Amino acid sequence: METNFLKRDIISIEDFSRKELDYIINYAKEIKNNPENFKEIMKHKTMISLFFENSTRTATSFKMAMLQLGGNVMEFNSQTSSLKKGETLKDTLKMMDGYSPDVVVMRHPNDGSIKFASHILNAPIINAGDGQNQHPTQTMLDLFSIKEITGKINETKIAIVGDLKYGRTAHSLAIALSKYENCKIHFISPESLKVPKKFIDALKEKNIEFSEHNLSELKNIINNIDILYMTRIQRERFPIGKEGEEEYKKISKIYSLKKELLENVKSDFRIMHPLPKIFEIEEEIDKTPFAYYFKQAANGLHIRKALLNLITQNGRI
Amino acid sequence: METNFLKRDIISIEDFSRKELDYIINYAKEIKNNPENFKEIMKHKTMISLFFENSTRTATSFKMAMLQLGGNVMEFNSQTSSLKKGETLKDTLKMMDGYSPDVVVMRHPNDGSIKFASHILNAPIINAGDGQNQHPTQTMLDLFSIKEITGKINETKIAIVGDLKYGRTAHSLAIALSKYENCKIHFISPESLKVPKKFIDALKEKNIEFSEHNLSELKNIINNIDILYMTRIQRERFPIGKEGEEEYKKISKIYSLKKELLENVKSDFRIMHPLPKIFEIEEEIDKTPFAYYFKQAANGLHIRKALLNLITQNGRI
Amino acid sequence: METNFLKRDIISIEDFSRKELDYIINYAKEIKNNPENFKEIMKHKTMISLFFENSTRTATSFKMAMLQLGGNVMEFNSQTSSLKKGETLKDTLKMMDGYSPDVVVMRHPNDGSIKFASHILNAPIINAGDGQNQHPTQTMLDLFSIKEITGKINETKIAIVGDLKYGRTAHSLAIALSKYENCKIHFISPESLKVPKKFIDALKEKNIEFSEHNLSELKNIINNIDILYMTRIQRERFPIGKEGEEEYKKISKIYSLKKELLENVKSDFRIMHPLPKIFEIEEEIDKTPFAYYFKQAANGLHIRKALLNLITQNGRI
Repeated sequence: METNFLKRDIISIEDFSRKELDYIINYAKEIKNNPENFKEIMKHKTMISLFFENSTRTATSFKMAMLQLGGNVMEFNSQTSSLKKGETLKDTLKMMDGYSPDVVVMRHPNDGSIKFASHILNAPIINAGDGQNQHPTQTMLDLFSIKEITGKINETKIAIVGDLKYGRTAHSLAIALSKYENCKIHFISPESLKVPKKFIDALKEKNIEFSEHNLSELKNIINNIDILYMTRIQRERFPIGKEGEEEYKKISKIYSLKKELLENVKSDFRIMHPLPKIFEIEEEIDKTPFAYYFKQAANGLHIRKALLNLITQNGRI
Repeated sequence: METNFLKRDIISIEDFSRKELDYIINYAKEIKNNPENFKEIMKHKTMISLFFENSTRTATSFKMAMLQLGGNVMEFNSQTSSLKKGETLKDTLKMMDGYSPDVVVMRHPNDGSIKFASHILNAPIINAGDGQNQHPTQTMLDLFSIKEITGKINETKIAIVGDLKYGRTAHSLAIALSKYENCKIHFISPESLKVPKKFIDALKEKNIEFSEHNLSELKNIINNIDILYMTRIQRERFPIGKEGEEEYKKISKIYSLKKELLENVKSDFRIMHPLPKIFEIEEEIDKTPFAYYFKQAANGLHIRKALLNLITQNGRI
Repeated sequence: METNFLKRDIISIEDFSRKELDYIINYAKEIKNNPENFKEIMKHKTMISLFFENSTRTATSFKMAMLQLGGNVMEFNSQTSSLKKGETLKDTLKMMDGYSPDVVVMRHPNDGSIKFASHILNAPIINAGDGQNQHPTQTMLDLFSIKEITGKINETKIAIVGDLKYGRTAHSLAIALSKYENCKIHFISPESLKVPKKFIDALKEKNIEFSEHNLSELKNIINNIDILYMTRIQRERFPIGKEGEEEYKKISKIYSLKKELLENVKSDFRIMHPLPKIFEIEEEIDKTPFAYYFKQAANGLHIRKALLNLITQNGRI
């Protein structure tokens, strides 16, 4: 069966078959290796960037991708928009669509808002994060990064650490890895931020091995994995007030990766993090060969170039 | 007599003869029909976008127009500007002009500010709205839309509804229609937001038929018109405090177009609205063939492309 | 000895030899005279604009320069960035660098921050102002402007007036002039805003003649100089409270250049000002041939084009 990416909406990582993910990853690799060949491939095409939530990395990465492919970027500033005058999101989207963009990239705080938008727009849309739901291009760049690190995605031994209750990044990556063979995931989190039962049940039905641990077990696991995937623990996940503040401080103190923990890791072991990181990785680690997170962020550029290109041009595989 | 648009400032709809308006509308139509032919026509040209007031539609539309013509856009953010350090508008304009823009697009809350700016700038300027005064590109896209709907502008039967006291859109459209033949305008508004006497007197001198009505008369008029032009009624037009709030709520309740009112309209009847709309058009109407407002907004793109092109290149007619 | 500008960071005016400054100035002049020849010279290149402080003139000027050379601009908005989530400046820079910009332009409130950034970035960086420290492209455009006015930089007779205690512009210009021959500087300021002793000592070691004066002496000096370089006196330099307010008002009143003071100046005398100006130059003066400040601001465009070009392409001299 043939797949065609042309005009396809990129909403959830679950919508992609392993074959499709591999295609995107391989195409991103080709772009990474030969940026010169892609300098004008989006010439005369325009991307509308609709961010209803603050973002640095994702918005910047999409914009740089588009510019480096020779395309145009139209940034919509939700702070100065008619939404403030009471216009509905639907009306704003219909207006934007009327300007004939070739692609729309959108982030919004509400789960499901990108799916909603996709029904209104003629232009294809890429989900740049909808609440706690999905952020598929993050997951694609994570898979791309894993392949850069280990040479393959099958058989990845990974520990995913941090806020596993609310972290859409962690959930999506686990789902994506379940499409590959013989991966093994260690979920490591404080008791209060464990993977939700609903999600554990879903994973059990998939072809993937996993286990759950508390933060103190990381030291026993770290020497046997390929990748340590750290995520940020956000203050706002804890109750307001003194008690919540203390719980947050306690966990923050435990949840800080120290350089000495890396003494016996495998030589090709690498640390990933979707960034921004605050206190969860000791600064000293940045200089070690194990720190992959800045390269990971840079990989976002290639994945986004690949997607922008595939869905606005004829991406038949 | 020959007209030349090159380097012409676009300040007020009143500055344009019917012949000139027709030329702009026809040129916008050519661009709408053949966007491929205009992809590089503004190559190497730069537009400075100076918005001293919030705007979504107009700012976005001008920017998209410029990008789709292959030009550059330099957006000035009045929030981070030296105006905050006490610099005069005149000095800011002289500085911007020193950077040799090919065209400046400006919105400002003060009536007459764009005229003022035009005396300072060497670059041609387009008025993107100066207070309650003028917004000529809105009127041009309205005329363009009327022609799209009815095939001509002469003989248009239109009802203009809403805030006719402060609404620059309503005033400008009426003036523009008075340049054509056999048009008929029904002004429909709450008593407190009627067309100002000064303006009524001006219209009486022009070659145009018009009448005034209150909101309840719309149902008698709607079946005999080609176009219903709705405008927004803004809370800030009513007095602060409880009494003003009540008056606003009362009018808002009456002033909401219901789908059942459209039962016996002409088959080619269409609803226009400069957008954003809030409560004044029932959402159900969006799906009917009578809703033209999103297409109207999209037409802004073609009108703005035409103007940008005409005033920066040799637009002789 | 050969110099190569390729990939060179532009951090401090002190890093540049007179030969290098002359080369940049001459190259900027060539660009000013033949803008048509440089319309595509930055094609496919991307500048990241990182402004951690408000700026109109400098940010706009760099962006216009890049666009008019056919390049792309990626603006980073520090207001919506991950810095707000607690990310370090270092991490933000490493992320930006991962997107492979061809050049970074940065302003930051902290002295030395651009030097710091230069150690983190692979891309060359241009200092667009770091606190009270340096703003080298301002000084280069000042030198360029002096040469435009007098035909040379050697032998310039200049009065630098205003806040000479905190004004980085004044300090840098004096340092730069000391690289040339037979210049003469009159420093004119209120007693409380005199040139710091440290800086006076440094100038004494250089090959430049200078003298210090209070504001009332300007009338005796103005007829014998080529250039009057005015700077802004900022309210925030004076103590908070009534006493500071009075001192500021008193100085503001004295420190306002009146047209009558220009009655007997040399015919090729010109007034410069880094802008924005508030009250320090009477508006009437704008219309006289002596007002050079708006042309000076416009010259920033050519200097920045020259630098962007030299450090991203092979600028061998």
